Amino acid sequence: MQNIIEFALEIDKLKQVTRKTRVLNSERYENSAEHSWQIALLAASLQSYAAEPVDINQVVMMLLVHDIGEIETGDTIVYAESGWEERKAHELACVTRIFGMLAPEQGARFLDLWKEFEAGETAEARFANAADRAMPVLLNLANHGQSWLENGIRHEQVVKRIAPPIREGCPALWEYLEGRLLDAKAKGWLG
Amino acid sequence: MQNIIEFALEIDKLKQVTRKTRVLNSERYENSAEHSWQIALLAASLQSYAAEPVDINQVVMMLLVHDIGEIETGDTIVYAESGWEERKAHELACVTRIFGMLAPEQGARFLDLWKEFEAGETAEARFANAADRAMPVLLNLANHGQSWLENGIRHEQVVKRIAPPIREGCPALWEYLEGRLLDAKAKGWLG
Repeated sequence: MQNIIEFALEIDKLKQVTRKTRVLNSERYENSAEHSWQIALLAASLQSYAAEPVDINQVVMMLLVHDIGEIETGDTIVYAESGWEERKAHELACVTRIFGMLAPEQGARFLDLWKEFEAGETAEARFANAADRAMPVLLNLANHGQSWLENGIRHEQVVKRIAPPIREGCPALWEYLEGRLLDAKAKGWLG
Repeated sequence: MQNIIEFALEIDKLKQVTRKTRVLNSERYENSAEHSWQIALLAASLQSYAAEPVDINQVVMMLLVHDIGEIETGDTIVYAESGWEERKAHELACVTRIFGMLAPEQGARFLDLWKEFEAGETAEARFANAADRAMPVLLNLANHGQSWLENGIRHEQVVKRIAPPIREGCPALWEYLEGRLLDAKAKGWLG
């Protein structure tokens, strides 16, 4: 029991990992804990639009654990060009440590979910990834391009980075976003 | 698709519902979105200690949606003595509206989860409730009684409020907390 309590308190740190997107109608930057909650519900709501049939419970659990490695690395904007591999190795070490606080069977379950998300080789991982990539775009579209403008992100960078994974995991979502992104560009919400 | 996007943006408001407990090692009060994420993972980790066998996916989904009604009512400390029924009626109206933004089948799924949690009549709901009640206690124990001291909460109030539901859903967790709460009282972390 004590080890589970320590695990629950350790992951509290994800509430202090700030992302680049602000909470709607707030000056506060969202954190990776509340982001994980939001995309789990986005994915559950989008289930019927998944590219392939998915086990939605697997998707939800994957999304709940996928960012825990950021407790040691912090969040990096998806448009960062370098350092990706070192960062992923550090995240893996972090989640191995944190999930290792749990009983072996439970820890392995969480670690497998984390690895499945990162590998992106199952229908569930691809769909989960689509939800993860789409949510900051949706917040930016609602925020008039807030994090794009603050970070000098251009329309073609967004499309290049997010079109392939979203199209692959949830094609109807990409179809929706494609038009919205062109509209956002026309409005000057990104460069 | 548009209705799902609007749902995902509507629930963003839960990130602005502040609770009485502070994030560990931070001055910031936690919000109900990140709290929902944390207790979903607490429950998943505690599964083997559930009073009865539970469908853990059902528990997790219940915890992810159970606080959404607070978007209109805000969070009320569990020790509040009055107004509970009016508040629950308002929360029900709120989740009926918000889940009603989704396609009927998906909206009904979320609404049923919310109602199941509130009714507390299934093993899953009782276990979910135990996780929900325990987490602020665990944060307070780590925070040296922060929200108890700020709100003048006494040891017997905590025990009266949380012992029955936690014992019912996760007896080993109550056994653990009972000793920790006595220790906290001795340390002056609650009255």
